Amino acid sequence: MYDIVKVSSTSHPAAVAGAIAGIMRESGNVEVRAIGAGAINQAMKALTIARKYLVQDDLDLSVVPNFETLDINGEERTALRLSVFKRPASILLGV
Amino acid sequence: MYDIVKVSSTSHPAAVAGAIAGIMRESGNVEVRAIGAGAINQAMKALTIARKYLVQDDLDLSVVPNFETLDINGEERTALRLSVFKRPASILLGV
Repeated sequence: MYDIVKVSSTSHPAAVAGAIAGIMRESGNVEVRAIGAGAINQAMKALTIARKYLVQDDLDLSVVPNFETLDINGEERTALRLSVFKRPASILLGV
Repeated sequence: MYDIVKVSSTSHPAAVAGAIAGIMRESGNVEVRAIGAGAINQAMKALTIARKYLVQDDLDLSVVPNFETLDINGEERTALRLSVFKRPASILLGV
């Protein structure tokens, strides 16, 4: 069982980054969900900042995006689901 | 040497996805740049669609985000640079 980090357009990227980095340290995998351009922007900023937080733990992450159809108050919405994985240390020096 | 796929808020995600999939097939690596929430949204949609295009080639991708500082007409702008890599086939079944 895992939690989904839900990001909105008003989320603070640094705070979301802290949450993402914490879950990555603990379990090596996190799921992030964002609906709409503003939320997706904040989510991607947060993931970029989380990479910086994880450097001190010798960890890095990569992101695999998926569409996800949700029912929100009876309305169908398409979310972007970002599955975040540990990035192999062997390619850490690549970028 | 490689090209950077520049995505704007008015880019068509399916067309960008086609370009990304083509470069991935050829070289296994592509760089994508987006500035601003609208452009980042289109870029992430394009990358999600590109994953679907690549399934038929037994390829998958993952995304490593970075901030990039650009000088655009003398003004400093922060872009999101997305480095896109082949995702190891060994974890293709994971998501």
